[in-house]
Amino acid sequence: MSYARQMLDTYPRDFNVDTGVLAATIDALNDCIQACTADVAADLSEQNVAEMVKCIRLCLDCTDVCAATAGVVSRQTEYDANVTMPLLEACTAICKSCGDECERHAQMHEHCRVCAEACRRCEQACRELLAALK
Amino acid sequence: MSYARQMLDTYPRDFNVDTGVLAATIDALNDCIQACTADVAADLSEQNVAEMVKCIRLCLDCTDVCAATAGVVSRQTEYDANVTMPLLEACTAICKSCGDECERHAQMHEHCRVCAEACRRCEQACRELLAALK
Amino acid sequence: MSYARQMLDTYPRDFNVDTGVLAATIDALNDCIQACTADVAADLSEQNVAEMVKCIRLCLDCTDVCAATAGVVSRQTEYDANVTMPLLEACTAICKSCGDECERHAQMHEHCRVCAEACRRCEQACRELLAALK
Amino acid sequence: MSYARQMLDTYPRDFNVDTGVLAATIDALNDCIQACTADVAADLSEQNVAEMVKCIRLCLDCTDVCAATAGVVSRQTEYDANVTMPLLEACTAICKSCGDECERHAQMHEHCRVCAEACRRCEQACRELLAALK
Repeated sequence: MSYARQMLDTYPRDFNVDTGVLAATIDALNDCIQACTADVAADLSEQNVAEMVKCIRLCLDCTDVCAATAGVVSRQTEYDANVTMPLLEACTAICKSCGDECERHAQMHEHCRVCAEACRRCEQACRELLAALK
Repeated sequence: MSYARQMLDTYPRDFNVDTGVLAATIDALNDCIQACTADVAADLSEQNVAEMVKCIRLCLDCTDVCAATAGVVSRQTEYDANVTMPLLEACTAICKSCGDECERHAQMHEHCRVCAEACRRCEQACRELLAALK
Repeated sequence: MSYARQMLDTYPRDFNVDTGVLAATIDALNDCIQACTADVAADLSEQNVAEMVKCIRLCLDCTDVCAATAGVVSRQTEYDANVTMPLLEACTAICKSCGDECERHAQMHEHCRVCAEACRRCEQACRELLAALK
Repeated sequence: MSYARQMLDTYPRDFNVDTGVLAATIDALNDCIQACTADVAADLSEQNVAEMVKCIRLCLDCTDVCAATAGVVSRQTEYDANVTMPLLEACTAICKSCGDECERHAQMHEHCRVCAEACRRCEQACRELLAALK
């Protein structure tokens, strides 16, 4: 069981959303942060780095937005739809863009294939949390 | 002149938005990150910490969302309205919530008064960038 | 297999340290970041929040230092002992302090027990990576 | 007056170090984070991006370590020499490495000249805080 799930299970307050959905989203966000951070480093080691520039930029943006979303979603301050909803929308959008770009390089670079998968899973998880919150 | 402005002035690409507006937003975001980080620490040192819990939570969320926004906006990857627009909306919303809560404590705690000011400025700057991008 | 491990396995360069040790450290750092972020939120929901202040402060510091360490270690820029060694020492020290403080509350708060475990594992993983790099 | 200074001046506790030195260090860290974030984006826009790879990697590491240091130093949890000292040493080391590399490109790229300056100032500020804490 992930630490995200263990921590949610021991949280002293109730959530307005299913704990399993919440934990799955946090896990997907953390996986995506790690994959994008590592993919930037891997892209920078490639001979064709000039062709990887867009991928690097999107991975950097994706890391930043996923990190903010993981923090806000983990904290469950009080459910503030004005913050959480657009943040999850921004996160879904960057995971989609980043996943698309990584996929373009997936055949040439295995690390981009793995990163695309992490982005797709995170995009899907954020969509499910958005739906659950609505 | 701030480093945000100096770096934008030496950037090798053009932006689709006025450099002055962009630099002012980045400066306001960085000020807000610093104010909220310090306000959490100050709140935790207060005798009435139990009454400061909501303020602490909102400052933590505000720090996370402002940090992501500062990164994405500084990077100007390619202008991707699907990411930047909802992110700026989330940032405006959390700066508003956090500023409101800090203001409630402004008379009792000077650090909350300063933090409220930083949140208000950041909220306003994000609104102006949103308007400029539309 | 974690994304940290998958990304290291597809990295286009060799490392100067065993991939298994590196992946285990990155996983432990990410677990610790998540546990500490969630523990802050949980502590802030407790009735005895005034007694949890030191725990909250240490968890915030621990999150920050683990995040930097995860980034630097994942990136493996070029092995720069002047940066990596003291950073891993700082990370070991804050995981120790934070784990000790969480353990003090472990009997009363289950979330602190889980967080203490994540801190201990991360402290141990950083020690092992330090030893492997020496 | 910077928000770092205003927040320190309204902090409800005393510090074990001069407020001016502390505020100057926090300001230098935040400037360095912004300069390095923007320099990565600028480097990625250059035609000779393949020659900028080391600069990009070091700027990413520098951003991460400065962000952790800014957080820990702003929070002033309780002065824990085992954490703060090695963290400031790691920060000094990465600012030195990053500043050296940026300086190598300073004549060709104005954004690297500005970033080198921010790194030098931050390195110097961290050294002064280290000296003041000893």
